[in-house]
Amino acid sequence: MDPVLSRDARTGQPRSQVAVEAGPAEVDAAVRAAHATLGALADRRQRAALLNAAADAVESRAGALIAAADAETALGVPRLTGELARVAYQFRFFAGIAADGRFLGVVIDPPDPAAVPPRPELRRWKVPLGTVAVFAASNFPFAFSVPGGDTASALAAGCPVVVKAHPDHPQTSELAAAAIRAAAAATGLPEDVLTLVHGRQAGVDLVRHPLIAAVGFTGSVPGGRALFDLAAARPVPIPFYGELGSLNPVLVTERVAATRPQETASGLAGSYTLGQGQFCTKPGLVLIPAGPAGDTLAKMTADAAAAAPAGALLDARMREQFLAGFAERGALAGVRVLVPAAAAPTGDAPQALRAGLLEADAADLPGVLLEECFGPVTVLARYRDAADAEAVLARVGGSLTATLHADPDEPEAAAWIARLARFAGRVIFGGWPTGVAVAPAMTHGGPYPATTAPTTSVGGAAIERWLRPVTFQTVPPALLPAELG
Amino acid sequence: MDPVLSRDARTGQPRSQVAVEAGPAEVDAAVRAAHATLGALADRRQRAALLNAAADAVESRAGALIAAADAETALGVPRLTGELARVAYQFRFFAGIAADGRFLGVVIDPPDPAAVPPRPELRRWKVPLGTVAVFAASNFPFAFSVPGGDTASALAAGCPVVVKAHPDHPQTSELAAAAIRAAAAATGLPEDVLTLVHGRQAGVDLVRHPLIAAVGFTGSVPGGRALFDLAAARPVPIPFYGELGSLNPVLVTERVAATRPQETASGLAGSYTLGQGQFCTKPGLVLIPAGPAGDTLAKMTADAAAAAPAGALLDARMREQFLAGFAERGALAGVRVLVPAAAAPTGDAPQALRAGLLEADAADLPGVLLEECFGPVTVLARYRDAADAEAVLARVGGSLTATLHADPDEPEAAAWIARLARFAGRVIFGGWPTGVAVAPAMTHGGPYPATTAPTTSVGGAAIERWLRPVTFQTVPPALLPAELG
Repeated sequence: MDPVLSRDARTGQPRSQVAVEAGPAEVDAAVRAAHATLGALADRRQRAALLNAAADAVESRAGALIAAADAETALGVPRLTGELARVAYQFRFFAGIAADGRFLGVVIDPPDPAAVPPRPELRRWKVPLGTVAVFAASNFPFAFSVPGGDTASALAAGCPVVVKAHPDHPQTSELAAAAIRAAAAATGLPEDVLTLVHGRQAGVDLVRHPLIAAVGFTGSVPGGRALFDLAAARPVPIPFYGELGSLNPVLVTERVAATRPQETASGLAGSYTLGQGQFCTKPGLVLIPAGPAGDTLAKMTADAAAAAPAGALLDARMREQFLAGFAERGALAGVRVLVPAAAAPTGDAPQALRAGLLEADAADLPGVLLEECFGPVTVLARYRDAADAEAVLARVGGSLTATLHADPDEPEAAAWIARLARFAGRVIFGGWPTGVAVAPAMTHGGPYPATTAPTTSVGGAAIERWLRPVTFQTVPPALLPAELG
Repeated sequence: MDPVLSRDARTGQPRSQVAVEAGPAEVDAAVRAAHATLGALADRRQRAALLNAAADAVESRAGALIAAADAETALGVPRLTGELARVAYQFRFFAGIAADGRFLGVVIDPPDPAAVPPRPELRRWKVPLGTVAVFAASNFPFAFSVPGGDTASALAAGCPVVVKAHPDHPQTSELAAAAIRAAAAATGLPEDVLTLVHGRQAGVDLVRHPLIAAVGFTGSVPGGRALFDLAAARPVPIPFYGELGSLNPVLVTERVAATRPQETASGLAGSYTLGQGQFCTKPGLVLIPAGPAGDTLAKMTADAAAAAPAGALLDARMREQFLAGFAERGALAGVRVLVPAAAAPTGDAPQALRAGLLEADAADLPGVLLEECFGPVTVLARYRDAADAEAVLARVGGSLTATLHADPDEPEAAAWIARLARFAGRVIFGGWPTGVAVAPAMTHGGPYPATTAPTTSVGGAAIERWLRPVTFQTVPPALLPAELG
């Protein structure tokens, strides 16, 4: 079987072999092992204990996890330290949701002979869908990978999890899986509440496995759509909760450009170069005014971007795709390269790059600039008037976020907010889209291709993806689960 | 363009031409007209007024609606009178949900600097998905057709509706659409909040239309799966909420068979022959014990079924498929025909049939008996012990309902209830599955093929299918919709 190698993202060199790719028999074994724990996960208070123990486990193993992830992703110790803290917070957040029990959605209707038709006694709650597959993302080795939100919300719902590791961080994945499995054992649950497989074909086999009841995915449009299509084409189709891609447009009004260009430029450059632009919420298109105020804002943004620290992308393929994508965009008629993306090798990071910045007129923006370009680049689209800006927004597909920089008393501000909500799952005023809070009111999702279903993969409502309703009609309370009796 | 004919279900003869099939241009026009009303539906209190007016409109036009539906479906005036009352109740039920506003799911998180990452102020609610397509069902010309639950819940959510009429009741569909459109006009809304198209290809074009944001469907597995596949294969895939087929198994314990065979037999025969067995919740497989108590129950069920009134099926194709399906099943080795399904023509109903009843041993039940047979037939599967019954249940796919007839103090009763909940959306104790209450705690859905998504198409939660979440981050209240400010 093919070896699974851990590689150094800064140099591109192999570090060690950490596993082998799973063949069909290994995928089947991983699914069956996880599926066998469905009954053991039936007690939601024990699931809460598991999730709290998982938070403790990733914290107590933070040193090894962060070292592996830093080597494999080049995201840097400060960012990864923050990401692991987020993961621990998220496990405890979902422990709270599991313990609270409101996610069960219990509704009890007494009989009503006057209803049409007459209503018998009905008791409704939600049960776990079954064993679920989770696909780890390249760009968040913790928060959208083995110990991430899909895993935490699925376990909170009572669903065993089979994770398909991302090839960019197999060692991190193994270490994180071991931490969660140890947490299960420590809380008296079987370790196989979470199992792990590696390999591209293993992912395909996982989505097709009859015992898999749903899929969580974070990644690219081509990869995600291929798996979505597989899930839909099964003899028994299953829900596919995929987060595929997002342009995250930003609109800056003339007044903001005129009154606080430096603050806006710094915020924008910081947001789009954060994590080397490898966030699903990176602002990829920024509508700023034509004319002198916009010129100043563009210049300040270019200066801030040029001063942003260089860094390596997650892997060599992404580096090549990014550089090719930047070159293709920069060479288009009407596109101005304000800052060239370029190799910036150092001794310990020969693969490092500097961020780029592009500019074009909104009125004739080439279509390729409306496609996500993964990595440290954004596009400033210069609009002459509201109609010009509106025409660009009408061309944007579904998006995780959309952002408005305006003053609250601008007459058009409310209309812009409503306009942005038509294609985005989260509308931000005066901030930046990178950074997704783990909170009850969060939506991390949006019309396709942002996500493949009208749900969220971050925040309290993420648990709803892994549940289905069941109603008990005139069942004597003694025969019901305790929470419904 | 091809004419759309209304036919008499009892005779199979054409009654009149009521419309023409919609070509691509007509489908596009119907979708665009409905889509143009999205803004007009933004006020949920006005939607409540629309739904109440729709209830009034179908009641005030009850005579014409029931006459048309009785001619086109042969379901009979008493049943159709009840179904129309249900529809009016359902419109008012969803008017109440729209007015109440809890479906908006408003969650407001204050900022929390201590969260990891720090949490900005977030305000979440749900917005309509957009314009939706609803496919009418053959077997409920009102309650799962133009004025049915999909339409009522979608309008309550704020989604304009384009209905694909069912070819078995085009005149009823036209009359019902006119009633709802008149109700819209009476409440100051555009009539095009609901538009109607006829024709098989029109349904395909509808699912593929870029402005259609979701689909509701009630019908067969082959037809539903074909449309599900189309929805998933779109460049922008959309949710497909389909109810496709269900076996609705019933388990009768030895004790019930021994102590109340007559009551059980009468209830069962009444349930499976109701509406000539053309309910999606018809009990299609009944596990009863082998031995003398089961023999008595089988005999009494056969007597009750033989005494059930004859009636016509919805159309000639269903009649042929039912008779062929019954003959195929009855001819299988090991299958005993307790009551033969047979033509029972009368003067005004030359197409009428009598119900049939089949029996086989659970231990070697042919697979075809585990497939839904639409029409007045059920299968008694005789089990020798619990393992025998369990082996049959393990072969049953996802089901809308599953029913247990036991005494509450039987030691195995709780385990059977839990077992049935593993594959069904509604578990019934001591009753019969036909009859689906419109209630907050109802689930009319289940694992595939019962439904294609883990949701319900009846009851309060049906509105959730037509909504998506949107979160507003640090947006000043003055710029927000009033309900979030």
